[in-house]
Amino acid sequence: MTSEPRRVDIIIAMDKLTIIKVGGKIVEEDETLQQFLADFSKVQDAKILVHGGGRLATKIAEQLGIESRMIDGRRITDEETLQVVTMVYAGLVNKKIVAGLQALGVNAIGLTGADMNVMRSEKRPVVTIDYGFAGDVKEVNTVALTLLLQNGFVPVLSPLTHDKKGLLLNTNADTIAAETAKALAALFDVTLIYCFEKSGVLMDEQNDNSVISLLNKDLYEKYKTEGIIQGGMIPKLDNAFHAIEAGVKQVIITNALAISGNKGTKICG
Amino acid sequence: MTSEPRRVDIIIAMDKLTIIKVGGKIVEEDETLQQFLADFSKVQDAKILVHGGGRLATKIAEQLGIESRMIDGRRITDEETLQVVTMVYAGLVNKKIVAGLQALGVNAIGLTGADMNVMRSEKRPVVTIDYGFAGDVKEVNTVALTLLLQNGFVPVLSPLTHDKKGLLLNTNADTIAAETAKALAALFDVTLIYCFEKSGVLMDEQNDNSVISLLNKDLYEKYKTEGIIQGGMIPKLDNAFHAIEAGVKQVIITNALAISGNKGTKICG
Repeated sequence: MTSEPRRVDIIIAMDKLTIIKVGGKIVEEDETLQQFLADFSKVQDAKILVHGGGRLATKIAEQLGIESRMIDGRRITDEETLQVVTMVYAGLVNKKIVAGLQALGVNAIGLTGADMNVMRSEKRPVVTIDYGFAGDVKEVNTVALTLLLQNGFVPVLSPLTHDKKGLLLNTNADTIAAETAKALAALFDVTLIYCFEKSGVLMDEQNDNSVISLLNKDLYEKYKTEGIIQGGMIPKLDNAFHAIEAGVKQVIITNALAISGNKGTKICG
Repeated sequence: MTSEPRRVDIIIAMDKLTIIKVGGKIVEEDETLQQFLADFSKVQDAKILVHGGGRLATKIAEQLGIESRMIDGRRITDEETLQVVTMVYAGLVNKKIVAGLQALGVNAIGLTGADMNVMRSEKRPVVTIDYGFAGDVKEVNTVALTLLLQNGFVPVLSPLTHDKKGLLLNTNADTIAAETAKALAALFDVTLIYCFEKSGVLMDEQNDNSVISLLNKDLYEKYKTEGIIQGGMIPKLDNAFHAIEAGVKQVIITNALAISGNKGTKICG
């Protein structure tokens, strides 16, 4: 007696991938960095860390007698400044994080966009402002990143890309995290976590207890119009919503020292 | 009719691997670096590039008001100096080389010893001289390097290792090249090329046409005793002979801008 053929629905579960972006003071002070790395080392799943380091770049530039020029929080990257950010991001900050993670048993590998051609960009065209050697991301090498992830390595991305014509380009770390998340969303079940000193997106910037726990596009537009959400939070949230639209499973904005907690602001489509 | 069984000798051919170490002025001047990278891009086989950058580190340290202290050509690496070499080696020099190779179609990936735990070292014990944060190589991660090589990537190693306890350590680039060659000699048919500004090991330091074309241990000892070979060439040649003893197929010392020619000094056991 043979059983009847049955239709079986197969759900292919994609591997989970957590992409965490950390910047600000957390990265620059040894104590907070160590605490953050210890928390990061405990994140299960495949994971990628994206770091900033802007304040440290400004400090080293100052020591070298190079003036840092910013417009709306974005650095104008002339040739000298490009050298400084290359030293600080790819050298000082990236390798401190990689060595710190290795000590915690995480097999980290530091990368700029040039390494393995992980992220190709184009020099930002001059419209009204000449940002200098700033790169807009054009392509993420998901094959190279997947090879590393599948072999148990943890990529640590510094905010530099390249044009594949020999030029390194300074690229916003929030953007690098979002572009990486978007590109890998087709292959992994991606959670993107932006973390910084505050507890999340706040209703009142002065009150760390005023976290907006859930934010969708409509609410975001409303809060922008009302001036509740403003400044540097806007490009970060724009990146977050673009990531959700591109298939990233969840985006969370939270305190860098509370990444394991289920707190902060959750972004939904 | 069946033929008689025959004994067949099978020779398993190992893949070829070329490891090239480049340092000195070549790395620090754009024109010579570009010329070198163009030559390097034409090397067939799997390959690894190891670079120096000491002079540039000294220059940047000076700009930051940090004094460089050397004993017998070896840098004393205090905490401030470690930060400078991390910025210069892992940042400025390594990423310039990686971006330059990517432009030439070489899928380069820049690594310190901390990345992928590629090279673990121990802080050099203080005997008579305290070299500070200098690392003596203890272990090369051949699995990680082989994964990269077999997937078509070209590792570009900067002269920094780590102790896997969170500390980056300054490590001589000639030693990094030799240790990498020795560790991979069991898996590949390795050629190690040390290249610099001169045409090879010279009989007369002032005459670039006086290249010693073939050097074995006996001749090396003789020339050392006679004072013909001296100074910085001695640790380089010690590294070269150790590599040969450890199974590296050939070691060549030649001009950085003549790596494709069959010139320079060949070291034999």
